[in-house]
Amino acid sequence: MTAAILTDTVRMNNNDGTTRIEKDCIGTLPVPANVYWGIHTQRAIENFPISGVPVSHHPELIRAYALVKQACAQANVTLGGITRKQGALIERACKDVYDGMLDDQFPVDVLQGGAGTSTNMNMNEVIANRALEFGGYERGEYTVIHPNDTVNKSQSTNDTYPAAVRLSLIFALRTLIRSVDALSMSFLALSRRTADVVKLGRTQLQDAVPMTFGQEFGAFHTTIASDSRRLSDMIDRLAVVNLGGTAIGTGICADARFRSIVTERLRAVSGISVTSADDAIAATSDMADFVDTSSAVKRLAVHLGKIANDIRLLTSGPQAGLVEIHIPARQAGSSIMPGKINPVIPESVNQSVFTVMGMDTTIAFAAEAGQLQLNAFEPVIAHSLLDGMLILAHAMDTLRTNCVDGITVNARIGLERAENSASLATSLNGYVGYEEAVRLAHKALAEGRSVHDVAVDEGRIRKEILDDVLDPLKLTRLGR
Amino acid sequence: MTAAILTDTVRMNNNDGTTRIEKDCIGTLPVPANVYWGIHTQRAIENFPISGVPVSHHPELIRAYALVKQACAQANVTLGGITRKQGALIERACKDVYDGMLDDQFPVDVLQGGAGTSTNMNMNEVIANRALEFGGYERGEYTVIHPNDTVNKSQSTNDTYPAAVRLSLIFALRTLIRSVDALSMSFLALSRRTADVVKLGRTQLQDAVPMTFGQEFGAFHTTIASDSRRLSDMIDRLAVVNLGGTAIGTGICADARFRSIVTERLRAVSGISVTSADDAIAATSDMADFVDTSSAVKRLAVHLGKIANDIRLLTSGPQAGLVEIHIPARQAGSSIMPGKINPVIPESVNQSVFTVMGMDTTIAFAAEAGQLQLNAFEPVIAHSLLDGMLILAHAMDTLRTNCVDGITVNARIGLERAENSASLATSLNGYVGYEEAVRLAHKALAEGRSVHDVAVDEGRIRKEILDDVLDPLKLTRLGR
Amino acid sequence: MTAAILTDTVRMNNNDGTTRIEKDCIGTLPVPANVYWGIHTQRAIENFPISGVPVSHHPELIRAYALVKQACAQANVTLGGITRKQGALIERACKDVYDGMLDDQFPVDVLQGGAGTSTNMNMNEVIANRALEFGGYERGEYTVIHPNDTVNKSQSTNDTYPAAVRLSLIFALRTLIRSVDALSMSFLALSRRTADVVKLGRTQLQDAVPMTFGQEFGAFHTTIASDSRRLSDMIDRLAVVNLGGTAIGTGICADARFRSIVTERLRAVSGISVTSADDAIAATSDMADFVDTSSAVKRLAVHLGKIANDIRLLTSGPQAGLVEIHIPARQAGSSIMPGKINPVIPESVNQSVFTVMGMDTTIAFAAEAGQLQLNAFEPVIAHSLLDGMLILAHAMDTLRTNCVDGITVNARIGLERAENSASLATSLNGYVGYEEAVRLAHKALAEGRSVHDVAVDEGRIRKEILDDVLDPLKLTRLGR
Amino acid sequence: MTAAILTDTVRMNNNDGTTRIEKDCIGTLPVPANVYWGIHTQRAIENFPISGVPVSHHPELIRAYALVKQACAQANVTLGGITRKQGALIERACKDVYDGMLDDQFPVDVLQGGAGTSTNMNMNEVIANRALEFGGYERGEYTVIHPNDTVNKSQSTNDTYPAAVRLSLIFALRTLIRSVDALSMSFLALSRRTADVVKLGRTQLQDAVPMTFGQEFGAFHTTIASDSRRLSDMIDRLAVVNLGGTAIGTGICADARFRSIVTERLRAVSGISVTSADDAIAATSDMADFVDTSSAVKRLAVHLGKIANDIRLLTSGPQAGLVEIHIPARQAGSSIMPGKINPVIPESVNQSVFTVMGMDTTIAFAAEAGQLQLNAFEPVIAHSLLDGMLILAHAMDTLRTNCVDGITVNARIGLERAENSASLATSLNGYVGYEEAVRLAHKALAEGRSVHDVAVDEGRIRKEILDDVLDPLKLTRLGR
Repeated sequence: MTAAILTDTVRMNNNDGTTRIEKDCIGTLPVPANVYWGIHTQRAIENFPISGVPVSHHPELIRAYALVKQACAQANVTLGGITRKQGALIERACKDVYDGMLDDQFPVDVLQGGAGTSTNMNMNEVIANRALEFGGYERGEYTVIHPNDTVNKSQSTNDTYPAAVRLSLIFALRTLIRSVDALSMSFLALSRRTADVVKLGRTQLQDAVPMTFGQEFGAFHTTIASDSRRLSDMIDRLAVVNLGGTAIGTGICADARFRSIVTERLRAVSGISVTSADDAIAATSDMADFVDTSSAVKRLAVHLGKIANDIRLLTSGPQAGLVEIHIPARQAGSSIMPGKINPVIPESVNQSVFTVMGMDTTIAFAAEAGQLQLNAFEPVIAHSLLDGMLILAHAMDTLRTNCVDGITVNARIGLERAENSASLATSLNGYVGYEEAVRLAHKALAEGRSVHDVAVDEGRIRKEILDDVLDPLKLTRLGR
Repeated sequence: MTAAILTDTVRMNNNDGTTRIEKDCIGTLPVPANVYWGIHTQRAIENFPISGVPVSHHPELIRAYALVKQACAQANVTLGGITRKQGALIERACKDVYDGMLDDQFPVDVLQGGAGTSTNMNMNEVIANRALEFGGYERGEYTVIHPNDTVNKSQSTNDTYPAAVRLSLIFALRTLIRSVDALSMSFLALSRRTADVVKLGRTQLQDAVPMTFGQEFGAFHTTIASDSRRLSDMIDRLAVVNLGGTAIGTGICADARFRSIVTERLRAVSGISVTSADDAIAATSDMADFVDTSSAVKRLAVHLGKIANDIRLLTSGPQAGLVEIHIPARQAGSSIMPGKINPVIPESVNQSVFTVMGMDTTIAFAAEAGQLQLNAFEPVIAHSLLDGMLILAHAMDTLRTNCVDGITVNARIGLERAENSASLATSLNGYVGYEEAVRLAHKALAEGRSVHDVAVDEGRIRKEILDDVLDPLKLTRLGR
Repeated sequence: MTAAILTDTVRMNNNDGTTRIEKDCIGTLPVPANVYWGIHTQRAIENFPISGVPVSHHPELIRAYALVKQACAQANVTLGGITRKQGALIERACKDVYDGMLDDQFPVDVLQGGAGTSTNMNMNEVIANRALEFGGYERGEYTVIHPNDTVNKSQSTNDTYPAAVRLSLIFALRTLIRSVDALSMSFLALSRRTADVVKLGRTQLQDAVPMTFGQEFGAFHTTIASDSRRLSDMIDRLAVVNLGGTAIGTGICADARFRSIVTERLRAVSGISVTSADDAIAATSDMADFVDTSSAVKRLAVHLGKIANDIRLLTSGPQAGLVEIHIPARQAGSSIMPGKINPVIPESVNQSVFTVMGMDTTIAFAAEAGQLQLNAFEPVIAHSLLDGMLILAHAMDTLRTNCVDGITVNARIGLERAENSASLATSLNGYVGYEEAVRLAHKALAEGRSVHDVAVDEGRIRKEILDDVLDPLKLTRLGR
Repeated sequence: MTAAILTDTVRMNNNDGTTRIEKDCIGTLPVPANVYWGIHTQRAIENFPISGVPVSHHPELIRAYALVKQACAQANVTLGGITRKQGALIERACKDVYDGMLDDQFPVDVLQGGAGTSTNMNMNEVIANRALEFGGYERGEYTVIHPNDTVNKSQSTNDTYPAAVRLSLIFALRTLIRSVDALSMSFLALSRRTADVVKLGRTQLQDAVPMTFGQEFGAFHTTIASDSRRLSDMIDRLAVVNLGGTAIGTGICADARFRSIVTERLRAVSGISVTSADDAIAATSDMADFVDTSSAVKRLAVHLGKIANDIRLLTSGPQAGLVEIHIPARQAGSSIMPGKINPVIPESVNQSVFTVMGMDTTIAFAAEAGQLQLNAFEPVIAHSLLDGMLILAHAMDTLRTNCVDGITVNARIGLERAENSASLATSLNGYVGYEEAVRLAHKALAEGRSVHDVAVDEGRIRKEILDDVLDPLKLTRLGR
C-alpha cells in the first residue's frame, strides 16, 4: 500500500476540510473535525510516512487493543479510578473498535517510532471521542473523558501495547494453525490414497530404496502436524501480560490491586486464559516470546519450503523430468511456450517462505536492539510477525486447495523405477555381504538389467528368496 | 493492504457483474466484462491470494513494463512481425499504462508464482484490450490484437520481466538516491554549523579524546555520501537487459535482429542507456545484479542504523543521559509520563533498517534458489527490493525534515567534558611517555581535577606547553 | 584451524610412510599403515579440504557416535546379526572412542559432503580396526570384522548420524545450560546486593521513572533463567532417534525388532531417555529439531546481546557517560590513550552473539535445502550448532567471572538522578491530571529544580503527600 | 580448534615454567619468560577463552599487521619520533613476524573484545621483545624499546588495526580470486568441450526449449567470472587506510606529516597502492568496506550454491533421475546401499555457501552495532570474513579438481529429450499462432509423438520448414 493510499484514507475522513484544535505538551494542532483521533495521532501521521501501511492493516491488533482497553476500563471502575458512567461509555466505544466499525481511524504507519505510543494514543483518542459521542458530548471535550487521564488510566504504552500485541498474535496463531491443520489433513488424505503405491526413494538426489508415495506424503503430514503443536505451544506463552506494570514495570500511577484485577478482566473479555508476568521489570523489555513466535513460524516455513521444493521436483517434466506426480494445472505457464504448465502454486509458497525468512531476520535485529527498560522496536516486531503469519496462512490455503488436494501419482513409473533400481542390491547385504552386493549392483547397472535377474543368474541365492526380498512393496513395509 | 482491499479493487472494476468468456490451454473462464485484463490474469487472481498486495503497489514496475512493451512493439513493427497499425495501437495503450491510467488493472499478488508470467500476461492482456478499444474493437477480439501473438511477439516472460524489473529498480534507485543526497547535504550543513564546537569523542562508549560536533556530523555526511555513489554504480549494472533472449536466452521465436533493435528502442523510450547482456543464457537466470542492489541498500541501512543509534544516544536525557544534542520534539513521548519526549523519528529509522535487513535475507534465499535455466522467484525479489528501497527513502526523508534539520548542540557540556577529561593525558605521551601519562590520568581522575592542573602542579612540563597541547580545539585540528 | 594443521594431524599419524592397501566400490587406495581409519576416511580427507576443522573438533559428536555404535552392536548380538565375540570387541573399541583415546583418528572436515557418511564410515573403520587389534588381528582384516557388514550392521548413515548428532547436542546443551545457570545465579546475587539502591529507569534512552539496580539486574536474571528452561525443553525433543530406519526410514536391511531393541540399548548406554521416532520416514529428513535448537540458542543470544549492550551503556564514562555501574578493569583499554579502560568482556559477548546470529542463518539455509528422503546438509548443521553453543557457553563464563561477579553500582549518582528527575511528575497524574503534570514537569526542567520543590511552591498538593508520592524508593515498590 | 589446543600452544611456549613480571595501568602480572608477548597479551589470553581460535589462525592478518608496523617504524624514524637504531631493530622484528617465524606468539582469541587492541598490543609486544633480542637486550627491557612509546609511536589500535585488517582482506581476496578464476576457466573448458551437444533447457523445473550443454556450463563460467571482477573491485576500496588518524581520526599524538609519510611507506613495503582516507573521523568507525566485501563474497556464494544445486540435479540418477551429466565418483556414497555414488563434492560446496550466508549475517549485525567514534566489533568482522573467504576458496578448489574437470555429458539422452519435447511447438508460434501451437503441443504430448511428426501429419506447414525450424541444434543458435 503506498503512502498515497494512506493520504487518501485521511482525506476521505475529512472531506469538508473543517478542523478542531487540540493541544499537547508541544503545542496546538488542527485535527480534522470529523475524525475520532486527536492530536497525538495527527502528529504521528505526519511523523511517520514510512511504509504506507497503516496499523489498520492488522485488524487483529485493533481488536486485541480494544479488549485491553475494555478490561482496563472495567478495572478502573472497580477501583474507583474512573466513574461508572465513564466506564460504560468507554466500554461501548471499545466494542465498536473491536467490531471493526472504526478501522479507518487507525492511520498511523506500522513502522512508527515511539514503542507503540502512537498506536496507544490513537486508541485512547478514538475511544475517548467515540465514548464522548455516545455520551452526547463533542469530540475533544476531554474534561469529560480524557484520552490519558480516563481511557489510559493506570496504564502506559509500555504495558498495554505488549499486551495487545500478544493477544493479536494469539488471534493470528489461531488462523495460522487452522491453515496448518487443514493442509496437514490434506496431506494425510493424499497419503492414504497412495498408501500402497510403490516408488523409489531418493537420498542426496540419487536413487535409494523403495518406499510408497503414501510414506512420502505421510512425512509431509507428520512434519507440519508437528508445527501445529509448536505453534499451539506459543499461545500459552503469549498469554502472559504485564498490565499494571505501567511505565517500566514498577507500576507507577497504578493502584497495587490493578494488576490482578485487570488481568482477570482481560481473561473474561477475551476468553483467553491470560496470566500476569512474574517479573514485571523483565517483562517490560523482554522480546523473547516474540522471538520464539518467529522461530515457530520459521520452523513451519522450513517445512513448507522443503515440501514445495519436493513437489516441484517430483512433478518435473512433463517428459524430461521425474514425472512421478501430477499437480493440477492452474494457469498457462508461459507467455511463449505453448501448453507449458508450471508449478506456480508451490512457487508462490516458496516465495512466502523466503518472505518469512526475512521476517525472522528483522525480528532478530529488532529484539536484540532493546535498551535498558524498554525495547522501542516492538512496532516492527508486531508488524513483521502479523504479516509473515498471514502470508504463510494464505500460502498454505492456496497450496492445499489449488495443489495438494488435486495431486495424483504416476503409479506405473513409480513401480518401474522401484523394480529396476540397482539400489535393490541393498537387500542382499545380509545374504552376500556389502562388497559382493556392490558387485551385483554394478553389474546390474552396467548391463541394464534388474538386480533380481542378475542375482538369479548368478545362482548364489535361491530365486524364491530373491522374489521375496526384492519385492519393492515388501521392502517398504519393514519400517512401518 | 489486506486481501479484502484487493477483492474490493476487483469488485470495483466489475460492478455490473457482466462477464466475457475467455479461453486458454486449460479451458474457459468468465472474466469481468469491463476490465482490461483477460483469462491469464483472472486465473492468477484466484491462484495467489497470498500477501494481499497487488503488483500495482509498485507503480515503478508498471511504468517500466510499459516501456519494455512499447520498445518491443516498435521493434516488431520494424521487423515486420506486427503491422504498423497494430504497433500504433499498442503504443497508445502502453502510454496509458505508463501514465498510470490503468494502475487498477494490475491486481495480481506480488508473491505470485510463475516467475512473473502472470504480470507479463496481465500486461499483455491489458495492453491488448486497451489497444483494441483504441482501434474500435471489442475487448477480447484477440484475432485483431492477441496478447501472446501480437503484444508478446518475440518475447517471453523470461526476458521481458527481468528487463522491466531492472528498469523499475533504476526508477526506485533514483528516488532513493535523491533522499540519500538530501540527507547527506543536511548532515553537511549541520556539520558546518557546528564545525568549531568542541566535544569529547568516545570509543567503545568510553571517553576518548576531543573532537568537534562538526567532525561527528561530518562523518555521517561522509558515510552516506559514499552510499550515494554505490547506489549510483548500480544503475549502470541494472541497465543491462536480455530482450530477444526469449524463453531461455536462445532467442527462440525471435528474429535474430530483434535483440539489438529492441535494446536500442528501449534506450530511446526510457532515456536510460540500456545495453544487451553478453551471455544471454546466463542473463536469464542470474540474480547477481539484484543481490548487489540489495547489498547496496543494506550498506546504506547499516549506516542509517548507526546514525540513528548515535543520535538517540547523544540526545539521551533530558537529565540523566549524555544530553549533548537536542533534536526537535515531534510528539508527546509517553501516554503516562508527562512531558516526556522520545527520539521517535530515529526509532522509526531503526525499524526501517531492520526491515531492510529482512529484505536482504529474503533476497539471498530467493536468489540462491534458482534452478537450471531460470530463477522462478524473481517476483519476491522485485517486491522486496522495491518495498525496502521505498521504506528507506521515506525513513530518510522524515529523518531529515523532522530531525536532522532541527538538531542543535549543547556547546557548554561539549566543551566542559572535553576540557576536564582525563583522556587528555593522551597528549602527554610524547612528553612523558605512555606509562607516566597513565599515572597523570589516574591522578586527575582520582582527584577530580583536570589533567592540565595536575600536570602544572607536577611541574615536569612548562605551563605554556600544557596550555597549548591540552587545548581541546587544537587537539581536534591535527587530523583535519 | 588451518588446513595445514589437519595435514599435520594426518602426517603425525603416519610418520613412517608405510601404507596398507584398501579397496571400495571405486577402486583401491593406500592408507597409512598405522592409522585406524580406512579407505572411506582416506578418500574423504582428500575430498574435503574445506574448513580445516576436523570432526574431532567436536568431541561431543565422537562420544555420542561411539554410544550409538555400542548400542547397535549390542542389538545386533541380541538378534544374532553379529557374533557375541564380534560384539565384545566392537564394544571395547567403542569405549576407547568414547573415552577420547582415538580423537586424532577423526580427521575428516566438518564441512564434508555426503550427509555424514564419511563420519559414519570413519567411525565404522576406526571401530573395526581397533576391535581387530583387540582381537589380535591385523588392521584391514575386514573378513573378521567388517566396517560395513559388522560394525554398521542394520544401520545406515541416515539413521545413525542424526542419532549421534542429537546426542551430541544434548551433551552440548548440558554444558550450555550449566553456563546459563551460573550466569543467571550471578545476576541474581548482584540483584540482591543492590536490591534497595535507587536509580532512574530509562525508556527509549530517555529518563523515565525510578527503579532499583536490583530490579534492573533482576531482569537480566529473569530473562536468561527463562532461556535455561527453553534449552532444557530441547533435550527431550532431541532424545528421539530413528535407529532401525536405516536408509530412508523403511528399515531395509534391519530386522524389524532392531528398532526397539537398539533404542532401549542406547537408553541404557547413554543414560539419556531416548525414544523412537513415530514416523520413521519423516524423521529421516526432518531438521526441525535442529532448527528449534538453533532458535533456542538464538533466543539466549538475543538476551545476552541486550545485557552486554546495557552493561556497556551503564558503565560508560568514566566522566562523560552514564557512569552508573563499575565493571572490573580487565586490561588496558587502549594502546594510545593512557589509563583508558574499556568494557572488553561484554564486547566479546556481543561478538559471540553476532556469531550465533550467523549460525542461525546457516542452519535456516541448510534445513530448508533438504530434498526428498534426506537432508544432505546435516554436517554443517551439526558443526554450526556445536560451535555456536560452545562459543556462547564460553562467552557467558567469561562474562560471569570477569565482569558480572565484580560489578558495583554508583549509589550516589543513582539516587541523585532519581530524585531530581522531572519524570517524577508522573506520580502527580492522579492528583492534578496528565496535562497539569506536563506543566509541572516542564517547569521543573526549565528551572533546574526538582518536581518536588516546584510542586510544593505551587501549593496544590500538600507537602506531606508530595514527600510520600515522590519518594523514589517507594516508587519502585509498587510493581514488586 | 578447541580451547585445549590454544592452551597447549601457550604451554608449549613456556615449558620451563619461569616467568617475568610485567606491569600495566591495572597492576602486575607474571608472563612466561620465554614468550615474546607481554602483559597486555597475557591478560587478553585470560579474558577471552571464547572460540578457542587464536588470531594466528589468520596468517594473512599477522603478515598484514607486520607490514603496517614496519611502515610506521619507517615513518617514525623519518620524523624523528624514534631513533634510527630503534627503527632498524623493529624492522627486523617485523620481518620475522611477516615471514611467519612467530605465528605461535599470537594466541589471543579471534573473538576478543576491545576493538582489536589486544591484537595490536600483542603485535607491539612481540615486535618490541623480538627487536630487543636482536639488539642484545632482555625481553621486557622496555626502556630501550617500548611496546607503546616506541613500536606503537604515532599510532592507535583504531587506525592500525583497520589498516591491517584491510591488507589482510586484500591478501585473502587474491587467494579467493585465484580460485574463482581457476574454476571459471574450468567451466569455460567444459563449456567448449560440450559446445555442440544438444539438450533440453528447463524453466521452473519444467521442460522448456533446446539448448546446448555448452551454453549451460558457459553460463556457470559467465556468472562466476563476473564475481571475479566484483571481488577485484573490492581491492582498491580496501586499500584505503586511516594511518595517522590515531585514536578517533583527529590524529592526536601524531605529527601532522605522519599521515602521508606512513601511507607512502606502507605502499612501498606492501606493494599495494594504498591511499589515505578522505575523512579520517568517518574512516575510524565506518565498516562499509567490510560490509561490501562480505556482499561480494555472498554474491559469489549465491552463484556457487546455484551451480552446486544444478550439478546435483543434472547428475541425479543413476536410473531414476535426470542423468544428463556424470560427475566423477569420489567415494562410496553410502554405508548401506552398495555401489551408491553421491554428489559429495557439490554438497560440500552447498555447505560452504550456507556458512558464508551465516558470515554475512554476522557481519551485518556487527557492522550495524558500531557506536559513536568506533566500531568495537571489528575483530569478529575480520575473523568471519577471513574464515568465509578461505572456506569458499577451498570449496571451489575441490569443486574444480574433484568434480568439474571430470564432468562428462550424456549426449544421447540430451538429444533425445530435445527432439521429442512437446515444447518444440514454441517454434511454431510464428507459423500457426500461440493458440494453435498449444493444440499441437497437447496433441504431441497426449499421443506420445514428436511435435514434428504431429505437425507433418496435419500438413499445415511444409515438411522442409518443419525439419528446419524444429532442428534442436539450430534452435540453440538463435541467441548466440
